[in-house]
Amino acid sequence: MKETEKNIGNDKKDEAMHKMGRQSAQMPRPVYIRESASIVGQKESKGPLGELFDMVGEDEMFGCKTWEEAESTLQKEAVLLLLGKAKEKKENIHFLLGGDLLGQTIASSFGIKELDIPFLGLFGACSTSGESLALASMILGGGFAQNVVCVTSSHFGSAEKEFRFPMEYGGQRPPCYTRTVTGSGAFLVSTAPGEHPYAVISGITVGKIVDMNMKDTFNMGCCMAPAAADVIASNFEDFGHGPDYYDKIITGDLGRVGQEALFHLLQQRGYDISACHTDCGMEMFDTSQDGTESGGSGCGCAASVLASYILPKIRDGEWKRVLFVPTGALLNKTSFNEGKPILGIAHAVMLESAV
Amino acid sequence: MKETEKNIGNDKKDEAMHKMGRQSAQMPRPVYIRESASIVGQKESKGPLGELFDMVGEDEMFGCKTWEEAESTLQKEAVLLLLGKAKEKKENIHFLLGGDLLGQTIASSFGIKELDIPFLGLFGACSTSGESLALASMILGGGFAQNVVCVTSSHFGSAEKEFRFPMEYGGQRPPCYTRTVTGSGAFLVSTAPGEHPYAVISGITVGKIVDMNMKDTFNMGCCMAPAAADVIASNFEDFGHGPDYYDKIITGDLGRVGQEALFHLLQQRGYDISACHTDCGMEMFDTSQDGTESGGSGCGCAASVLASYILPKIRDGEWKRVLFVPTGALLNKTSFNEGKPILGIAHAVMLESAV
Repeated sequence: MKETEKNIGNDKKDEAMHKMGRQSAQMPRPVYIRESASIVGQKESKGPLGELFDMVGEDEMFGCKTWEEAESTLQKEAVLLLLGKAKEKKENIHFLLGGDLLGQTIASSFGIKELDIPFLGLFGACSTSGESLALASMILGGGFAQNVVCVTSSHFGSAEKEFRFPMEYGGQRPPCYTRTVTGSGAFLVSTAPGEHPYAVISGITVGKIVDMNMKDTFNMGCCMAPAAADVIASNFEDFGHGPDYYDKIITGDLGRVGQEALFHLLQQRGYDISACHTDCGMEMFDTSQDGTESGGSGCGCAASVLASYILPKIRDGEWKRVLFVPTGALLNKTSFNEGKPILGIAHAVMLESAV
Repeated sequence: MKETEKNIGNDKKDEAMHKMGRQSAQMPRPVYIRESASIVGQKESKGPLGELFDMVGEDEMFGCKTWEEAESTLQKEAVLLLLGKAKEKKENIHFLLGGDLLGQTIASSFGIKELDIPFLGLFGACSTSGESLALASMILGGGFAQNVVCVTSSHFGSAEKEFRFPMEYGGQRPPCYTRTVTGSGAFLVSTAPGEHPYAVISGITVGKIVDMNMKDTFNMGCCMAPAAADVIASNFEDFGHGPDYYDKIITGDLGRVGQEALFHLLQQRGYDISACHTDCGMEMFDTSQDGTESGGSGCGCAASVLASYILPKIRDGEWKRVLFVPTGALLNKTSFNEGKPILGIAHAVMLESAV
């Protein structure tokens, strides 16, 4: 918190004093993650983090007729659960920032429409949870709201339908494949700490689109690793620190194969993060779980792992400083069919112990 | 500017002092639209605003092989044109906020990837230009950056392919149909005014998703009018004023049929905006232009009309206060085929003369 506090009250000296380096910003006042909520499917509940999620669906349909409806229900239930846990009325939520992987982000639109909260829709593929927290922290840090909810989701069925083959086709998957997580994570980000805040967002680094001309849709980890490496190195450079500043650096959904690429790319820039790195996709599934190959992926992967696993460790003081780096692959069916590469993007959110 | 200035320096009294009412915020320091740029296609260049656009493509392909590539080129060229007009290097742009109508917003991703600017992707359908300006103004107003670029686009060909029938099908269109504009508008939003700023963003109202169970994809104007009415009325209520506060209230792409619905809905809430309202879609095309029926639509409609027509009138003092209200329809092919309604959203940006 030192870097943050020393600047409070300096507003008139430098109009953009909260900007750090090329692509980062620090918070001029504490921005708290007050509460979180997570909801996942059956497969996720049987992984290593299974006991930690707030809610588990009995099947993949969550009481709905289509996968898209099921994913919308994930978002709606995650937000309602969040508000219940925080004992906060929806009327006190000033803005809701959300997104998902589906075309025109319909999982979010149909999921949150009945909540009657002013809505800002985002698309950063699987980096969207990081994008939503970065924007929320600037909105709150700038004094434009007191309470913002961030929510993202993904669903294995709706994502396979959107991006890959019909599931009935039963195609084989290579070892670099990451399985889209059925899940959602929601966060109440506030200027007030509440009773037991999970963490403070002390700074952010907004990522650039990185194009390494990767074209393998079964190897999303390697498509996104260059963007993750770029935003992590930029965070170090903008804030003038290195890997040892953090107890943990946690990417979104690179998986085991993408992690290797990330280490290699950061070593080329002079950074070794192997001692403190993990990946939400690797934490989500055990290697023994059939069909999960390199790990988990999707907007709901990083969000549900942050809500259930990372934030409690920060609140309990086990980790003091965490760099949370959700990673996204930018493509759609048309761009793939027209021979375009898969672009990568990642955003970094600096989480610190609130005590 | 009075409401804005009186609060500067009060930071410590109230942490969320820039919030106004339920869903609005005002700017604690001046946020300028320093420069704008517009690029459109042939049909748009033959409409009433034809002479005002910065650049017109010779055909709908803009030198590309596909409509999606053409739309990406629109965004890229609009941003490069903007930076040229502003004499600003891309290295000095801290964040780029953008979006479009295509699935997974690929027009933006592939359009701006080479610019090497930290990117925050948005999806608000045709309301995205408003969403981008609202977020940019909070980022700049909060002191997290000095220069932000906002860019959105749409393309008639890529949108018909994404949402409707193959163009070769030659389907007939009802009178409520609005034609997707081929165009892009880009804005340099800054804490510094530059030589001749177009306008100041003095406040914003973030819209809610409104579901009136509308299902006619040929009548997007009426699908979006309820959301526009809601955010306009909320702006009046949050800031304690009415229609006469503004010289103009300008919606994004309701068209002539949607305008009627808007007037009716606002009259039910006690507001008559008929004396000061116009719509970017109505300004874009002349009723005599074949295939434009109720007017223009798309992310590029509101953005290119703001850049070419609205902002110069504010800079020249003809209009002192304008409420700019881009309107979006939230749906995709899957949601339509599964019988879901078309949801509406709109965001309001308060533009004032900078002098």
